[in-house]
Amino acid sequence: MSISLDDIRAARIRLAPLLSPSPLRTYRELDDAVGHGIHVHVKHENFNPTGSFKVRNGLSFMTALPDEARARGVVAATRGNHGLGIAYAGRAFGVHTTVCVPLGNNPDKNAAMRALGARLIEEGRDYDESVKVAERIARDEGATMAHSTNDRMVIAGAGTLTLEIIEQEPRIDALVIAIGGGSQAVGALTVLGALKPEAKVYGVQAAGAAASHAGWHARKPVTIERADTFADGLATRSTYEMTFPALLDGLADFVTVTDAEIANAMRILLRTTHSMVEPAGAAGLAGLIKLAPQLEGKRVGIVLSGANVDSSTLQRVLSGEL
Amino acid sequence: MSISLDDIRAARIRLAPLLSPSPLRTYRELDDAVGHGIHVHVKHENFNPTGSFKVRNGLSFMTALPDEARARGVVAATRGNHGLGIAYAGRAFGVHTTVCVPLGNNPDKNAAMRALGARLIEEGRDYDESVKVAERIARDEGATMAHSTNDRMVIAGAGTLTLEIIEQEPRIDALVIAIGGGSQAVGALTVLGALKPEAKVYGVQAAGAAASHAGWHARKPVTIERADTFADGLATRSTYEMTFPALLDGLADFVTVTDAEIANAMRILLRTTHSMVEPAGAAGLAGLIKLAPQLEGKRVGIVLSGANVDSSTLQRVLSGEL
Repeated sequence: MSISLDDIRAARIRLAPLLSPSPLRTYRELDDAVGHGIHVHVKHENFNPTGSFKVRNGLSFMTALPDEARARGVVAATRGNHGLGIAYAGRAFGVHTTVCVPLGNNPDKNAAMRALGARLIEEGRDYDESVKVAERIARDEGATMAHSTNDRMVIAGAGTLTLEIIEQEPRIDALVIAIGGGSQAVGALTVLGALKPEAKVYGVQAAGAAASHAGWHARKPVTIERADTFADGLATRSTYEMTFPALLDGLADFVTVTDAEIANAMRILLRTTHSMVEPAGAAGLAGLIKLAPQLEGKRVGIVLSGANVDSSTLQRVLSGEL
Repeated sequence: MSISLDDIRAARIRLAPLLSPSPLRTYRELDDAVGHGIHVHVKHENFNPTGSFKVRNGLSFMTALPDEARARGVVAATRGNHGLGIAYAGRAFGVHTTVCVPLGNNPDKNAAMRALGARLIEEGRDYDESVKVAERIARDEGATMAHSTNDRMVIAGAGTLTLEIIEQEPRIDALVIAIGGGSQAVGALTVLGALKPEAKVYGVQAAGAAASHAGWHARKPVTIERADTFADGLATRSTYEMTFPALLDGLADFVTVTDAEIANAMRILLRTTHSMVEPAGAAGLAGLIKLAPQLEGKRVGIVLSGANVDSSTLQRVLSGEL
């Protein structure tokens, strides 16, 4: 069951007192770097509390949750940003939150989730295994599972950023959106489909974690064995039932980018926007660079979806090691 | 002649349609790093358009300028951020802007000012020599000089950030403010002096560019021979007539921090806030760490004044080379 513009508008009303719109900005030097006469509009979700767009998802989920469910607590599986969003929203409403991360998860993100008061469970070898752990805990403890993708309220939260984009720049011709689970892209397709159907949405995945990309081209759900990318926000291994049909139906095109291309996009964004960007947050630009020849002269939005990069990764990107 | 709260309130009214308030946020991991039970409130001026608080100064100056002066153009001397603020405001109001930078100035900042449409003049060996160049050009061309410090409208613009801070956190006990020319600190003293006189303002300068610090302790104006710090936003060589009396009168204390201490503060901020910060923007935290024993248990505001650090400096900070 797909979400509607009304779901996203309702999420926006719930979020309005809790979160300011993020800026949409342009940078001439970024336009120069992309070339092809493209006007790049940068949505600064990296300025949000918790450092990513996922705070929208967490707040949308938590504000829609009935009181009795709030009292029983919320469980989420995450590589970091979804967990931060859920923990932040939990703290705001006094809801106990548990976040499940895979073993070896980024210690900075783990520390940040604990700092927001979440209980942290480290188990499983990757995100998809952490989902199983979270489902088990939710079942055992009678808590509510907040899936990072397969949840209407989560997707509605992600959709609010596109609602802001088309108000901030109604002339937008296209968005290039990085896809982990697909909440951002499905939100974008829902908003633009209803309000500006001639605008296109392009999908981007990391080449080492391209299940949705493979599924989109094969036109059927796909699960892969490993997610191999330094863009932890995109390290998913499967398509998701609540987003895949909409992606299949709506995306104008779907490309992959290598980790080297993502690192290069990070360097461009650091230099031209002087704002912090994590690997997943730079994948949109990496995809835009790849798609640029077919977007000649267009106004294209990209989402700097998050800022949560650890210092050693940042250093390796700046040095060109990545 | 010192500025008043009314000047700052008037600036805020002029800026309201042009600039959103910047967030004031807390980070438990940053509190842990500072210790002494201090609650650190972070003013994110690094999220502003142009990447620094100076956009306030530029917009305040430009919106107060009579039409006939706008038609003759505006000249500024800068190491970067003041020039970016003036260029941004000039573009917004169709005013021709000239920015004078010293030879060897940061090429990224020069490029960013050109990208905003400013004419760039590279002359002189440091900021104070560029001021002379700018004054000469203003005289020759009949343009108006926008001094980065000795200007009421500029200082009033800087003051608007403190007006936001005490609305966002009325319980604030103290601010620790980095001082280049002193517009931010004098703005803070003016606002707090009028609205919360029991709150204290502390000044911080780079040890290698500590003219105001020396003057404050000697209680007389001071000019030094060289400004030697990698915090280009703080690389001034003298006290300034429009800010020095207020600093002398109002600062609770005034400390210096080494470049190594600033670099360390940058690393802490990058790790805990995941936002971009230039050296001058981290000097407030470096000063707070020094002052921490005397601020036990207080709510203290610091200003991440700017984000405009070039990639090679950032890399050297992350690697510990700086």
